[in-house]
Amino acid sequence: MRAITEEKFEELLKFMEEKEIDVLMIMDTEYGKNINLHYLTGHPDSAIVLLTRDGETVLIPGDIQLAEKYAEVDEIIDLRNYDLNFHMAIKDFVENRWKKSSLTFGVHENILYGTIIKMKNNISQLKFFTDPIQITRILEKLRSTKSDYELNQLKKATQISNKTIEDIKNFCINAKNETENDLSFLVRKKMAEYGADDVAFESLVGNTSRSHQLHCYPPASNQKYALQGLALIDFGAKYKGYCADITVPISFGNLAEEQQRMRDFVIKAYEAAIEIIDIGVPLWKIHEEGVQMLKKGGYDLPYALGHGLGLTVHDSPLLIRKPSDEYSLKHWKEEYVQDGMVFTIEPGIYKQGLGGFRLENDVMIKNGKVNVITKSEHLNF
Amino acid sequence: MRAITEEKFEELLKFMEEKEIDVLMIMDTEYGKNINLHYLTGHPDSAIVLLTRDGETVLIPGDIQLAEKYAEVDEIIDLRNYDLNFHMAIKDFVENRWKKSSLTFGVHENILYGTIIKMKNNISQLKFFTDPIQITRILEKLRSTKSDYELNQLKKATQISNKTIEDIKNFCINAKNETENDLSFLVRKKMAEYGADDVAFESLVGNTSRSHQLHCYPPASNQKYALQGLALIDFGAKYKGYCADITVPISFGNLAEEQQRMRDFVIKAYEAAIEIIDIGVPLWKIHEEGVQMLKKGGYDLPYALGHGLGLTVHDSPLLIRKPSDEYSLKHWKEEYVQDGMVFTIEPGIYKQGLGGFRLENDVMIKNGKVNVITKSEHLNF
Repeated sequence: MRAITEEKFEELLKFMEEKEIDVLMIMDTEYGKNINLHYLTGHPDSAIVLLTRDGETVLIPGDIQLAEKYAEVDEIIDLRNYDLNFHMAIKDFVENRWKKSSLTFGVHENILYGTIIKMKNNISQLKFFTDPIQITRILEKLRSTKSDYELNQLKKATQISNKTIEDIKNFCINAKNETENDLSFLVRKKMAEYGADDVAFESLVGNTSRSHQLHCYPPASNQKYALQGLALIDFGAKYKGYCADITVPISFGNLAEEQQRMRDFVIKAYEAAIEIIDIGVPLWKIHEEGVQMLKKGGYDLPYALGHGLGLTVHDSPLLIRKPSDEYSLKHWKEEYVQDGMVFTIEPGIYKQGLGGFRLENDVMIKNGKVNVITKSEHLNF
Repeated sequence: MRAITEEKFEELLKFMEEKEIDVLMIMDTEYGKNINLHYLTGHPDSAIVLLTRDGETVLIPGDIQLAEKYAEVDEIIDLRNYDLNFHMAIKDFVENRWKKSSLTFGVHENILYGTIIKMKNNISQLKFFTDPIQITRILEKLRSTKSDYELNQLKKATQISNKTIEDIKNFCINAKNETENDLSFLVRKKMAEYGADDVAFESLVGNTSRSHQLHCYPPASNQKYALQGLALIDFGAKYKGYCADITVPISFGNLAEEQQRMRDFVIKAYEAAIEIIDIGVPLWKIHEEGVQMLKKGGYDLPYALGHGLGLTVHDSPLLIRKPSDEYSLKHWKEEYVQDGMVFTIEPGIYKQGLGGFRLENDVMIKNGKVNVITKSEHLNF
């Protein structure tokens, strides 16, 4: 089943009409991920989709059996007929099906540069729409508000994640020599038991010596977890493809004064940001609200305050400052909180030696109401 | 520590000299993965590296603390000085450090198209080397043979994987109602116990109803694993970043005649391919050897017979047929088995209703000898 609604699909076709794009090509591969493919077709794996201006969808999948099971498209191409070479398949379509002397292909910014060069070399009829950022933006815009079906799946993903917080608590209460890996396994196992397809991403489990890392590397280790100081776990369930994302800040024992101050400023920044979320509020203002509160304490935020959730854990919208370079600014349009949005709020402070403190919850806007749908809070043991 | 040897690094600089490329830019992001960044710098996470023709390396990482710990480069740029905008950082380098009126940047095929367009718009001094496939190819060539250090890490990854086969056997012997997910968890847990950093990729666990999928989706499910018929598990350990990759074909109970025939042809294809591997043999001939044997049985192989192993589970070289389109053929060069190569051999046959049978082992070429270093074989229970 494809997630995009009929109404949004029409909006996309209208965009193609206005921009004189004949074929929209979205490609999702191991090296160039693009969730729009899943969103537009329901196919959850590597493939290319060609969408014509009159709404015809042609899928060129890596795994045809999988496509036959999941994809909602007009036609599925068997790559074995083209020596497993998708360039040949597209060339055949352009030359023998559409028979146009010139065709304008629209592609997403995230397509691989090598693919474009190769297509230009192989298929002389092709022209590329010159502004791929516009294609990225329209798809981000469509994905940034969710249908009721999507909201329900996201709700389920967050419920599974919330339930798992209880298991994390029990782990911490009883923790002796258990490692970060032990906690990572536990979370994975519990979420599967509660009905998750999978983890939304590899859980980031940092004890006091690793929690200062923005993105723990490796995600979990064989170090003991329950050590005096600031720890955290950043995790989420995937349910029917939809991703939740939570960070629980955890501490063991008494905190030093500076660690308490970090904690206090993160919580203040979190609360200030949550407080101003409302229909119609510009997204960059929410980011700024969190950032300014951290600045009062002398801290900075080295990333966006929040990001959308959907078929990927980093979906649109992005809650970030206005762009600073001319090109991006030219393509930038102020975005506002709208019904159907689901995004994280995740301020954090990170100091090598002191550790990291990040609080992250998921916010859903539904029927005009702002709901914090996950239940992360600072846990002390 | 960077994995590339000094000798290979010099070869890369010589290539840049010949092609008149001033700066090689490699970019690895969430949406455009590129293992060359890790290979050239030791940095295991999202970043951009700029390599000048005289061998200077400048890293622009997403996580600067991680870079300070892992990267072996001349300089690390703090993106917070550029409003977290890497285009501004590169612009500053071009305008204020290198001060050239024109600079030719070489980029890999896997860079995102949107990045190229944006850089062209933002930095007027930039020219791009017109043939990114040549950059992909030289890096593939360098990575396709491993140093002794790399071979040792790969050996360790395969040893961990081999040891785990015993746990899989025990699981199957005792299996009653255990699910695919149970087996997936077990394999993950055991490999961590044996010293793996992580799984090399999410294990693909298919029971008889799912083993016909080329790439099980979801990777594992809550279906019972030990059901009459053909099952498989495709898994591997990651050790110090290096990846192993094995598929164990598993059956429960007696096989139907057609299933036995599938099994026999896969094993014949596997043995035929292994048999002809030797220093100097063209890689496409090994692929063809396997394919032709499958064809004798009336089966086709819908993918490449094998792929290299290294810092990514799909490393170079690729054991595949010669390319079929002009553009690729023009850039194609026959490659041969060489000392230091490590690759999989993985023929398979897949039939909905009958299941799938894939046998996959890892081959290492060292000191002129061909060694099958993993121990997968058909297991019947």
